[in-house]
Amino acid sequence: MEHAEMEWLIIAPIAGLVSIAVAFYLYHYVNKQDAGSPRMKEISEAIKTGANAYLKRQNMTLAVFVAVMAIIIGIFFSYYMALAYVFGSFCTTIAAYFGMNAAVRANVRTSNAARKGLNQAFSVAFFGGAVMGLSIVGMALSGASVLYYVFNNVFQNPKAALDTVLGFSFGASALALFAKAGGGIYTKTADIGADLVGKVEMGIPEDDPRNPAVIADNVGDNVGDVAGMGADLIDSYIAGTIAAMIIGAEVYWTASGETIYIILPLLIKAAGIFASVLGLLFVRVGKRGSPGAALNRGTFATCFLFAVLTFLIISSLQIGNRGLGIFFAAVAGLIAGMVIGITTDFFTSIDRTPVLKTAEAARTGAAINILSGFSYGIMSIVPPVLGIVVAMLASWNIATMFGVDPFYGIAIAAVGMLATLGMIISADAYGPIVDNAKGIAEQSGLGEEVIETADRLDAAGNTAKAITKGFAIGAAALQVIALFHAFAMVVGVNVIDLMDPKIVGGVFIGGMMPPLFSALLILAVGRNGYRMVEEIRRQFKENPDIMEGKSKPDYARCVDIATKGALRELILPGLLAIIAPLVVGFFLGPAALAGFLAGSIITGIIFALLMANSGGTWDNAKKYIEAGKFGGKGSDAHKAAVIGDTVGDPFKDTAGPSLNTMITVMTLVATVFAPLIALYALF
Amino acid sequence: MEHAEMEWLIIAPIAGLVSIAVAFYLYHYVNKQDAGSPRMKEISEAIKTGANAYLKRQNMTLAVFVAVMAIIIGIFFSYYMALAYVFGSFCTTIAAYFGMNAAVRANVRTSNAARKGLNQAFSVAFFGGAVMGLSIVGMALSGASVLYYVFNNVFQNPKAALDTVLGFSFGASALALFAKAGGGIYTKTADIGADLVGKVEMGIPEDDPRNPAVIADNVGDNVGDVAGMGADLIDSYIAGTIAAMIIGAEVYWTASGETIYIILPLLIKAAGIFASVLGLLFVRVGKRGSPGAALNRGTFATCFLFAVLTFLIISSLQIGNRGLGIFFAAVAGLIAGMVIGITTDFFTSIDRTPVLKTAEAARTGAAINILSGFSYGIMSIVPPVLGIVVAMLASWNIATMFGVDPFYGIAIAAVGMLATLGMIISADAYGPIVDNAKGIAEQSGLGEEVIETADRLDAAGNTAKAITKGFAIGAAALQVIALFHAFAMVVGVNVIDLMDPKIVGGVFIGGMMPPLFSALLILAVGRNGYRMVEEIRRQFKENPDIMEGKSKPDYARCVDIATKGALRELILPGLLAIIAPLVVGFFLGPAALAGFLAGSIITGIIFALLMANSGGTWDNAKKYIEAGKFGGKGSDAHKAAVIGDTVGDPFKDTAGPSLNTMITVMTLVATVFAPLIALYALF
Repeated sequence: MEHAEMEWLIIAPIAGLVSIAVAFYLYHYVNKQDAGSPRMKEISEAIKTGANAYLKRQNMTLAVFVAVMAIIIGIFFSYYMALAYVFGSFCTTIAAYFGMNAAVRANVRTSNAARKGLNQAFSVAFFGGAVMGLSIVGMALSGASVLYYVFNNVFQNPKAALDTVLGFSFGASALALFAKAGGGIYTKTADIGADLVGKVEMGIPEDDPRNPAVIADNVGDNVGDVAGMGADLIDSYIAGTIAAMIIGAEVYWTASGETIYIILPLLIKAAGIFASVLGLLFVRVGKRGSPGAALNRGTFATCFLFAVLTFLIISSLQIGNRGLGIFFAAVAGLIAGMVIGITTDFFTSIDRTPVLKTAEAARTGAAINILSGFSYGIMSIVPPVLGIVVAMLASWNIATMFGVDPFYGIAIAAVGMLATLGMIISADAYGPIVDNAKGIAEQSGLGEEVIETADRLDAAGNTAKAITKGFAIGAAALQVIALFHAFAMVVGVNVIDLMDPKIVGGVFIGGMMPPLFSALLILAVGRNGYRMVEEIRRQFKENPDIMEGKSKPDYARCVDIATKGALRELILPGLLAIIAPLVVGFFLGPAALAGFLAGSIITGIIFALLMANSGGTWDNAKKYIEAGKFGGKGSDAHKAAVIGDTVGDPFKDTAGPSLNTMITVMTLVATVFAPLIALYALF
Repeated sequence: MEHAEMEWLIIAPIAGLVSIAVAFYLYHYVNKQDAGSPRMKEISEAIKTGANAYLKRQNMTLAVFVAVMAIIIGIFFSYYMALAYVFGSFCTTIAAYFGMNAAVRANVRTSNAARKGLNQAFSVAFFGGAVMGLSIVGMALSGASVLYYVFNNVFQNPKAALDTVLGFSFGASALALFAKAGGGIYTKTADIGADLVGKVEMGIPEDDPRNPAVIADNVGDNVGDVAGMGADLIDSYIAGTIAAMIIGAEVYWTASGETIYIILPLLIKAAGIFASVLGLLFVRVGKRGSPGAALNRGTFATCFLFAVLTFLIISSLQIGNRGLGIFFAAVAGLIAGMVIGITTDFFTSIDRTPVLKTAEAARTGAAINILSGFSYGIMSIVPPVLGIVVAMLASWNIATMFGVDPFYGIAIAAVGMLATLGMIISADAYGPIVDNAKGIAEQSGLGEEVIETADRLDAAGNTAKAITKGFAIGAAALQVIALFHAFAMVVGVNVIDLMDPKIVGGVFIGGMMPPLFSALLILAVGRNGYRMVEEIRRQFKENPDIMEGKSKPDYARCVDIATKGALRELILPGLLAIIAPLVVGFFLGPAALAGFLAGSIITGIIFALLMANSGGTWDNAKKYIEAGKFGGKGSDAHKAAVIGDTVGDPFKDTAGPSLNTMITVMTLVATVFAPLIALYALF
């Protein structure tokens, strides 16, 4: 590497460390807030204990898997790669743990702050979420850039160095997959159990302390929505970067020895991190402002700052016309991400046609409500898919126009789309924090006014969540397309021809993997939810004092059921994602494997969107009715809407969000094992 | 064409005419049976009137569409092709009308025969269904072969003659799509309306004459399940044949002037028809036999006879080694079809794990029941997808081994898989006939014993339906893959490269079409179902005498709502299937269009299987509970299962079965318009 470029690379770990430092500062800020009354502290403590217990057991289970995988990688590839793999798993684990810890502390402090007013509560919740956002991107970027720097110095060969970064990415993604699947099963087990018996059968409100599953439900919000979601997005973030780096190396370093295109993706991510940190300053409610507007302002400011910083960095690199092409490709990705987010929001917003029609359908019964939400969930696929196609074609054409390699152009668009992830996660993690804060406020008997404040905070969280989810799925799509190209380059496949039946066979088998994976997760939630329901019913039946409020239910038992079940159930789908591409690769060959990946990407994106958005539609249709429409709470329409919402729970919080990670993991497995497959494939 | 081959071709129209003649004979047999009591005749008359009224209005609506389309084809292509197009539409219409008419007559006669015993009732029902089966394949094969023969003589050029057969196929498929979508919306509108208000709200049994929608429901079974299903399968049958003929012409006629490979698909279909006619003789219940075993015996006998006849025909052609390859490819398709059918049956059979678990899940409520059925529906994708891949790779490799063009090999496998369609439809149409017979028996107050006989007949119908549905979807997949190859050959695309972003863009857009189409149909059912529910509620409310049985409800009004709604709602999804490939083709070019078709085939098959089988699982789970398990009828588990069944209704009877036709129509539109697209595409 030339000296000048080495100097540039240093920006990436600096950005990462700045991000982590700010995360620490915010953690400290959140932690020094008052946690409220003894009752609140008690509840908070119970949630913290449950969440930590779950994460500890999950990590112990996964440690075995990581060790086995590291040994395999060490034997077949290199010890450096194995090391990088373990390091990637470790970074994901630490960032998720730290972020969740901040969230758990922020929950109760947000409830308490809500007693003083909206503004203060909003700050605590948002900065609590930002700890997760910033620590995750910080760990990811510093980890990837330091590994690349060190091993490039060791090997004096960028491609060899990239193998270790690939190992890092694989470690992060594989762990993310398990964390997401496990957390997703946990949270919905608890949620469904609590809802079905508590709300529907016993008629007590959500988050009522008499419900034995109420603590498990709150724990679930943290291990599933916060920790799982953080783990989910970090993998797209890293994999997108490594895809662009590999393509940069394959195209430019191989041809002309240029290394700047290898590190450029890291620099763009650094720009995104600086923009996210600065963007935090714009997230203020102010007097008479709304939390939703504050979150949106932060997102837009970050995007604008990102564009400016990227332009400055790229123009300083003095790579001429090509630089301009790369800049436009990155911005095209960013804009596409925003457009996808905003249009997707239409399908799940509480004041738009899909939600209104779905709520209205609930009057005809649960079945029609479900059919309506499912259909609008499918229709919500259209804008993001068109957005992804436009982003892909635009970045391809921009790249061609400015003399940039078109595959590199697509990869850069993916990098640009996810560069502002620090802010995206911050706004996203805010959602479960205020949701939990509301729960704690209800359980600890804070007044109507406080709960109303929490409600206002909560409503803003839902929109933010919808936008960022659309954003994340769009980015994951582009990222995995880039990764797919990187795989093809590594394996030396130049043409993936749909006229070849082996490739078509691969496409078919790959196409059925994401739905199959979803089905396994949903069945897992069903089975585990059933155990939970039986337990809650048992407690209410054997101890009638619980319902009267005279006796405390056995919260720990419910936490235990959710924990054990989630860990047991995540193994099969997790292994499926790792083993399936290997089976196809070794038995049908690299070309069929390429088809397999392509097939999985297509249905993966479609099912991810369908599940996330139909779940969101049912959820908001229920909330719409709960706001007093069509008979309000307790009406037949409401009961029907609750059934729809329960169907949507594992759709939107277990299966849907796991699919991004699943297709990323499958593509990474293929890329990591590509050399072996090329050597030993049967066909 | 050489003289010897012309002689061979005559077999095809002869087989077709034999089939039609036997259909007429069976129609006569059914018609001469006694239609029972005046009350039965009255009900039957009402169903017949409703069904005919619907078909008449549907045909009038579609006549406009057919005329417009014919003019477009006449202007841009040729008048001969336009004529063939109109002829294809006409054949589909006539066959569906004739078959439905036989079914409507068979319904009431089956109820009446059930008073005498199982055997007699079974014969009436099965032969009633066989009218549909035989007339459809007869019309299709004689139409296609005569058109090819005539225009080959006119043009003295097989490729030009094939264009007219392509027009015939397009006409048949486009009409089938509208008939299937319209019939599907009609039947589920009526079914959901009748169930939701009658069963759930008023607590009266299915098919109770007090239900205002009961006649509409029975009409729906006929226009949706019988007429729609017949129309659905004819299009795969014709399109698979024309695909093989086109590939045969492109490969063999272009290279060496051989024409035998063009007509061979017609000969194989002829063998299938003869086998189906002879197979009818094996469908006998006998003493102490079961209807299910009789249906299966007929299917297996037909398959065996088909293999023997195909072998005889091919070996008489004396095309040596190649003939053997073609024979094995056809048999590979046939075997794959049977394996797919049998394995798929596992997921919907009433005594297997998926149904049992789904029924058990209903105890935890409707949501878990729905999640369970949905997940098993997804898992049911695995065996058929693997079956399709194996069939494709096997026929490809067999073809290569015997020196046959591999694309031709795949097309022949598709031809083999659907060759026995005469028997498949006969067994399939049996289902709705006995279902209706049961309804009529209940409405006209026939005794317990008769209803029990009808129940036994009905149970056999469900299994037959599941097997043939799996069979039909597998065949449709292989057929549309062959058609896809034919399209690529016509448009001159030799490589469809997944590394090309325009093709990937096409794949993404194509991939979202089948789910989008399903969503539009499901929403249509929801909207129309809502209108129906309101109407039924109104009748019960305004006229309390209905519930007491003192006054007859206004059946006609419900029939009218279902009819108008179905016709209004089928337009948008139908046009989508025709316009979308044109938009992609003209704006993104032929290569992107190839990607579009490939994407639609993958998700089309996945969604078709998912919807058909999850619907079947919910349906049988409900029936399992109704048989007295988990609390039986009226229990909470039953209520939950009814919700699942209602969700499944438009899945399995509207959206799912329309998807085959939809992807066939899209591929045909692309193939028909390929010359124009190649000339005028923007990119």
